[in-house]
Amino acid sequence: MTEKLTDLNVDALFIGDKSENADIFKSTLNKLVNQHMGWRENYMPQDKPLITESDKDSETFKKTNQRMQSVLDELSVRLRSNSVPWHSPRYFGHMNSETLMPSILAYSYAMLWNGNNVAYESSPATSQMEEEVGQDFAKFNGLENGWGHISADGSLANMEGLWYARNMKSLPLAMKEVKPELVADKSDWELMNMSADEILEILNSQDPEVATEIKGRSARAGHDLDKLGKWIVPQTKHYSWLKAADVVGVGLDNVVSCPVDENYRLDVVALEKIIRDLAAEHTPILGVVAVVGSTEEGQIDPVDKVVELRNKLQKEGSYFYLHVDAAYGSYGRSLFLDEDYNFIPYEDLKAVHQKYGVFQEDKEYISKEVYNAYKAFPEAESITVDPHKMGYVPYAAGGIAIREKSMRDIIGYFPVYVFDKRSGAPATLTPYILEGSKAGATAAAVWVAHRIMPLNVSGYGKLLGRSIEAANRYYEFLKDLHFNINGTEVEVNPLTHPDYNMVDWSFNIKGNTDLAKMNELNLQFYHKASFVGGPVYHNDFITSHTDFAVDGYGDSPLPYVKSLGFSEEEWKKEQKVGILRASILTPFLYDRDNFAEYAEKIKAAMEEKLTAILG
Amino acid sequence: MTEKLTDLNVDALFIGDKSENADIFKSTLNKLVNQHMGWRENYMPQDKPLITESDKDSETFKKTNQRMQSVLDELSVRLRSNSVPWHSPRYFGHMNSETLMPSILAYSYAMLWNGNNVAYESSPATSQMEEEVGQDFAKFNGLENGWGHISADGSLANMEGLWYARNMKSLPLAMKEVKPELVADKSDWELMNMSADEILEILNSQDPEVATEIKGRSARAGHDLDKLGKWIVPQTKHYSWLKAADVVGVGLDNVVSCPVDENYRLDVVALEKIIRDLAAEHTPILGVVAVVGSTEEGQIDPVDKVVELRNKLQKEGSYFYLHVDAAYGSYGRSLFLDEDYNFIPYEDLKAVHQKYGVFQEDKEYISKEVYNAYKAFPEAESITVDPHKMGYVPYAAGGIAIREKSMRDIIGYFPVYVFDKRSGAPATLTPYILEGSKAGATAAAVWVAHRIMPLNVSGYGKLLGRSIEAANRYYEFLKDLHFNINGTEVEVNPLTHPDYNMVDWSFNIKGNTDLAKMNELNLQFYHKASFVGGPVYHNDFITSHTDFAVDGYGDSPLPYVKSLGFSEEEWKKEQKVGILRASILTPFLYDRDNFAEYAEKIKAAMEEKLTAILG
Repeated sequence: MTEKLTDLNVDALFIGDKSENADIFKSTLNKLVNQHMGWRENYMPQDKPLITESDKDSETFKKTNQRMQSVLDELSVRLRSNSVPWHSPRYFGHMNSETLMPSILAYSYAMLWNGNNVAYESSPATSQMEEEVGQDFAKFNGLENGWGHISADGSLANMEGLWYARNMKSLPLAMKEVKPELVADKSDWELMNMSADEILEILNSQDPEVATEIKGRSARAGHDLDKLGKWIVPQTKHYSWLKAADVVGVGLDNVVSCPVDENYRLDVVALEKIIRDLAAEHTPILGVVAVVGSTEEGQIDPVDKVVELRNKLQKEGSYFYLHVDAAYGSYGRSLFLDEDYNFIPYEDLKAVHQKYGVFQEDKEYISKEVYNAYKAFPEAESITVDPHKMGYVPYAAGGIAIREKSMRDIIGYFPVYVFDKRSGAPATLTPYILEGSKAGATAAAVWVAHRIMPLNVSGYGKLLGRSIEAANRYYEFLKDLHFNINGTEVEVNPLTHPDYNMVDWSFNIKGNTDLAKMNELNLQFYHKASFVGGPVYHNDFITSHTDFAVDGYGDSPLPYVKSLGFSEEEWKKEQKVGILRASILTPFLYDRDNFAEYAEKIKAAMEEKLTAILG
Repeated sequence: MTEKLTDLNVDALFIGDKSENADIFKSTLNKLVNQHMGWRENYMPQDKPLITESDKDSETFKKTNQRMQSVLDELSVRLRSNSVPWHSPRYFGHMNSETLMPSILAYSYAMLWNGNNVAYESSPATSQMEEEVGQDFAKFNGLENGWGHISADGSLANMEGLWYARNMKSLPLAMKEVKPELVADKSDWELMNMSADEILEILNSQDPEVATEIKGRSARAGHDLDKLGKWIVPQTKHYSWLKAADVVGVGLDNVVSCPVDENYRLDVVALEKIIRDLAAEHTPILGVVAVVGSTEEGQIDPVDKVVELRNKLQKEGSYFYLHVDAAYGSYGRSLFLDEDYNFIPYEDLKAVHQKYGVFQEDKEYISKEVYNAYKAFPEAESITVDPHKMGYVPYAAGGIAIREKSMRDIIGYFPVYVFDKRSGAPATLTPYILEGSKAGATAAAVWVAHRIMPLNVSGYGKLLGRSIEAANRYYEFLKDLHFNINGTEVEVNPLTHPDYNMVDWSFNIKGNTDLAKMNELNLQFYHKASFVGGPVYHNDFITSHTDFAVDGYGDSPLPYVKSLGFSEEEWKKEQKVGILRASILTPFLYDRDNFAEYAEKIKAAMEEKLTAILG
């Protein structure tokens, strides 16, 4: 099953833009459905069917079946007329594309059993799969003693990360209250700056009753939440961080935004200054978030430099919890792992990628900075990992990985024995997650994906390579692109070189120095390239749109705005720049010929839309 | 589509224990899959397939396909050998059974598009369906000005309810801070006891900037969380309430357990005393939870009496937020609604149920107390509604409904215009929910179920009637049951008459007065009637088990324990009683002949297991 492989063919794992693999999908689906039906029939075969042929022949049965068919027909009409065709290489918008055929099959199949992974008892098969998937999360993120699980989405995984940080940070205060001798040598400032390792070591060395009492006096009790300090997130932050701070009681007043540099990556110099200024007024740092794959730019924060800074500050007596929000980027780590899950030396990367056919061109699209960021993942306390983004697994499948399995007890809700003693269940999730009931089918979908495609350069690395290569092709394509729309010259201005697989850009009329006018042009373009402009099924180029506004981004967009010829006054007046945004996930445009073919189509579609706008 | 109907045939909506409707399932699935494949092919039919026949003929393609098939084979083996056969009428355990065939079909179909209902833009079709489902949630729970949405599960819906309550309760303090004249006539105690209606009225009458500033000073800012008072939950509380209080920062120290009566329903007399005692020391009540369908007993708290109490106390100056945790019970409300969604007068209930064939026997299984509890739902501020429980929809589909749509702004994260202005999207969820990305397929699954089965006596009422009738048959069966195992008399002792569709019971050896011994017997029985005792597929009777312990239940189980002949000393010594627990969801055992047939099988299976234990 898990033999090494250098020749994975990604084409075989998707239905295809034109349903090229429909026959494989349908025959496999029918095989699986038949297996399930046989399973039902043969559970206690001595039991007679309770729905007889005569029942099925009744008028009410037929009427009800007709009613069902008619509602499903309406479902079908609605889905076909109002769904986004992101299976197509003409879709350049949100983080979506078609998803892995085996994951769709696995979900459909496992759903027939309707397992609930909240407890092993309800779902022995899929609970075990989730345990294995959680171990995968830890493994490919480099967390040797780690653990992980699937969550409903990345927002919840981020919230769980903050919950971990909050409870962790509060434990030293609880220790002081419950058993002062544990931390007798520490000042209050030192208590608020104990490292995760030190806290865990003390907690884990206590008798269960004492540990339970300490946990009972931690932040979960509901006191002193505002003593825990600041939660620092980069300006490119996903809105989920604000929501998480609200929900978890840390509070919006304790969220601090850290500037990003002109590549839209966390500015570590600015971060150091923020932390030192706060330390000077004796405000502790609850934690820092590094984003790997920012939502609007796909940029990758320098996790390595954040870790370096933490190491430096730790020697000076400060410590912060580090959460890597890699909802978008975590699967990218498979690009850097060999088949034994060793992190590949940078100097070998290109050769290894060539060996496994990760990229078609003899290029290394990945910068040293990005490489270093991924390398530093194992230093984080927790990492958000979303299979439903770059894992190409259907929604809803988020996830989280933690560095030390014993961290679970910090948020852990019940003494394990309550659940385990009675049944001996090997993989119960209930006590350790934010959520309750959860679909076993999700675990099946992620599990098959991971088993078919190892989370290294031989598996997912190849799939992500396709995406990154396509993004680079698109970036180069945009750099060279311009239009003449009935005499009006239109420039195309990409934002930055993509760290990952997202390319942002904007259109501007040559010579235009009115930022509001450019913003309007790009908004209009978006309206013509999204669901807004009529039946999306008839739209031949679809993208997404975002605003970089002062409220949120500060002046980070200024260098880009200036580079387009706008004055600083324009920026101050307009307070935002509208951006078109393409996550390029399609597994088919990595190929130079395919890309060339679609480049022409895209160019024509853009030209048509711009003509409709500019007349 | 939505014509009235009196003759819905529930048999047509399930695959069936013995796959009786497999042909309908498979032919419909194939039709839908073909429709999807055609949709892909015909989106921009001028685009050539990117996977050619020659590509498919390559060795790597074939190898990869084989690898996929082999992993799916392993999935199939694992699922078939380690899944719980809860499609069978031999399953008497957790809240699960087979799920609605149209919902499985809809999920499988919609998943092919992989819509993400976080934003309308990503999923126009399924976002609109979720909006309609949310309106259904409000409608069948009687919330005329309400709103609702699907959540990943009931734990999250409960957490969202607490988040609502927390932010709501804190608003008067924020008003005092931001614009004191709004509440100038109020004392601090009065501020902490303003009704939801009054708070909303003031907030909604402010300019958007002022409202935003007030919200910015509410609990979401992260201060004064411990001023908000106590959150009162019944002793039968689901563990999710502890987790929610931890996560949301309200804190475990602010959770107060209220005793239940001998029917395991919230004791309103005790509740009044708790509230008055707290008021006497000027501790406000953040809110009260009434549980409709307790997790371990299926019992239904007297929501009407809690509302009565609230009305009485409000006149005396106290107010509490009311959340109804009807994760399990909410769909039961369809039993009380006529086809125009009017709440049926109690005196007409039996006749209406007969007309629609809700029950086979000429009995009214539903007590007046339960009726009154459901009738009072519209008084609650928020209600947890789980389609994946008694909605018979596959996991993961929880949900929440709120009484006033404008409450959304209290937890709402972003000014609506940020999302809506740009696109005009009619049904965007992002700003108003705890979660982020969520599967559009879930909305499709719930939507088809609601469209096929109206949420009243003509639709879901009939399905739930089947479940409740089967539970009553099982209760009667247990009451008459006893065993003689090679000379040892074994009694069967049901816990209470079921309010809903759950039946708890325990076995005891006649004359045994050693509670530990009885607990051991029931635990051993559970081990023989669950996944613990070997391959669950070969087990012919499956149930679940729970402990009612002093830590949690207080002395509420004492009357039951005493009724079995145990002394109070035994209870004090053992501190818990082990209970077997059956949620009876199967849609097939409502029928008297079917039940009689299975009663014999169940009796034989129990006897065999008891013999194995008692020798």
